[in-house]
Amino acid sequence: MEFDFNITIVGLGLIGGSFAMALRDLKPKNLWAIDIDTDAMETAERLNIIDKGYTNPEVPLKKSDIVILCVYPELTIKFIKDNLKYFKSGAIITDTAGIKDKVINEINTFIREDIDFIGGHPMAGKESKGLQYASKDIFDGANYIITPIPKNNKHNVSIIEDIATKIGCKSIIKIDPKTHDEVIAYTSQLPHVLAVALMNCNNIENVETFIGGSFRDTTRVAKINSKLWSELLMENKENILNQIDLFQAYISSIKEAIENERMESLEDIFSEASSKKGEAI
Amino acid sequence: MEFDFNITIVGLGLIGGSFAMALRDLKPKNLWAIDIDTDAMETAERLNIIDKGYTNPEVPLKKSDIVILCVYPELTIKFIKDNLKYFKSGAIITDTAGIKDKVINEINTFIREDIDFIGGHPMAGKESKGLQYASKDIFDGANYIITPIPKNNKHNVSIIEDIATKIGCKSIIKIDPKTHDEVIAYTSQLPHVLAVALMNCNNIENVETFIGGSFRDTTRVAKINSKLWSELLMENKENILNQIDLFQAYISSIKEAIENERMESLEDIFSEASSKKGEAI
Repeated sequence: MEFDFNITIVGLGLIGGSFAMALRDLKPKNLWAIDIDTDAMETAERLNIIDKGYTNPEVPLKKSDIVILCVYPELTIKFIKDNLKYFKSGAIITDTAGIKDKVINEINTFIREDIDFIGGHPMAGKESKGLQYASKDIFDGANYIITPIPKNNKHNVSIIEDIATKIGCKSIIKIDPKTHDEVIAYTSQLPHVLAVALMNCNNIENVETFIGGSFRDTTRVAKINSKLWSELLMENKENILNQIDLFQAYISSIKEAIENERMESLEDIFSEASSKKGEAI
Repeated sequence: MEFDFNITIVGLGLIGGSFAMALRDLKPKNLWAIDIDTDAMETAERLNIIDKGYTNPEVPLKKSDIVILCVYPELTIKFIKDNLKYFKSGAIITDTAGIKDKVINEINTFIREDIDFIGGHPMAGKESKGLQYASKDIFDGANYIITPIPKNNKHNVSIIEDIATKIGCKSIIKIDPKTHDEVIAYTSQLPHVLAVALMNCNNIENVETFIGGSFRDTTRVAKINSKLWSELLMENKENILNQIDLFQAYISSIKEAIENERMESLEDIFSEASSKKGEAI
């Protein structure tokens, strides 16, 4: 598949910046960015990450074949709504938001018939935010979820799949938006909730002198973008509450085994986890 | 401080093997091992990790200035008890078990007055077990906790501190055994409990296609040595139950903020975790 596209990245932060760096290697016809942060865009231009950055969306959108939104869910919806008239006819729009059902449903209440919004979610990132932490490597070996709905054009979906493959992702999975949100509540949102709760319940002075790898790894994502993650969890309320309940049930079973000194039960619980934790996970 | 010691490692698994490799660089007078696994010891001899391996403890113990036990807590106690008469007068014995109070208390009910047992716990390890996974690098930058009691000889304690420093540990901390067990319930045992519960409550098919770094990191230690960790948790029952209760209270506060759609509260909770997660942690 040729890569002769004009591509615009909206939001030149960690994900947007990384996406731009990765796309650069694919030599699109033009690679532009839209952001309110002029410093970030000047840096990106200077480092040749992008051809040009724009604070005004009109110019790049009118010429872009593909637009990749790398901003928070609410802003993803707002941006498309506010700039609806500027998108080129036939444009493919995709996003990187951590929730899909609400984003896609709302966008489809106002989107033009001649542009195609295809939900996307690269399972890649770091605890830091901002262009200075961006790296095309974040996609290496990562999973990429695409959430097409019946009205999406199949050829356009395959273009997004192709991009995901070319930037280095290992698995490209297509599921419906509702299922995405159910799944992500477990695989992504719950681990963040656990990391935060573990970090916050610290009751040990000078705790850093008593930790090892298990604590560091389990709390890595506690260095959290609080605004973004509050939004993601609230927008996926039912699913994350469901996962928290399931998790708490499992914690209770471990607690009960310890309380009642049932060594074999505890060993079984641990062995079960160990065998579930396979190489791919 | 000169390093002209005869040292014996008891248990040539992941920790014992790593300890032997690290001590090798310090050129002790002799470096021996005791294990029931003759294959492991032959491999270690062949690779020059140790000078000689013994299935019969008597010979090396009679000549060892320092004995480092790298076996499970119960076996640590049993080994010293069963081989009490063989230890050289003036020997320093230390261990690497993940709990300290019970181990030290029990050993002190029978230990000879002329040998010095000093509790130790390197905060280092990997999810795998066995000599084939051993590496001296596991101590690089790690914390090392020593739990001296009033009867321990101060000079002997400083020898253990010196060893911990020389094998690459970043911080050597001395605390009493009770405090160690309280602390470790939070910094080490709780993260393992969370990893196991998270792995076990998996309700997603083909989950490996939907995960990212946060899930991988939070479940890394779910690949758990079930026998060892059941023993560690049971022997530290009160402390780990206490930590689980504290943790569950924090999960409940997150759950409540989401249920009642209190966005600001959720942001505050996340911001608190983010600022607590400093560089050292």
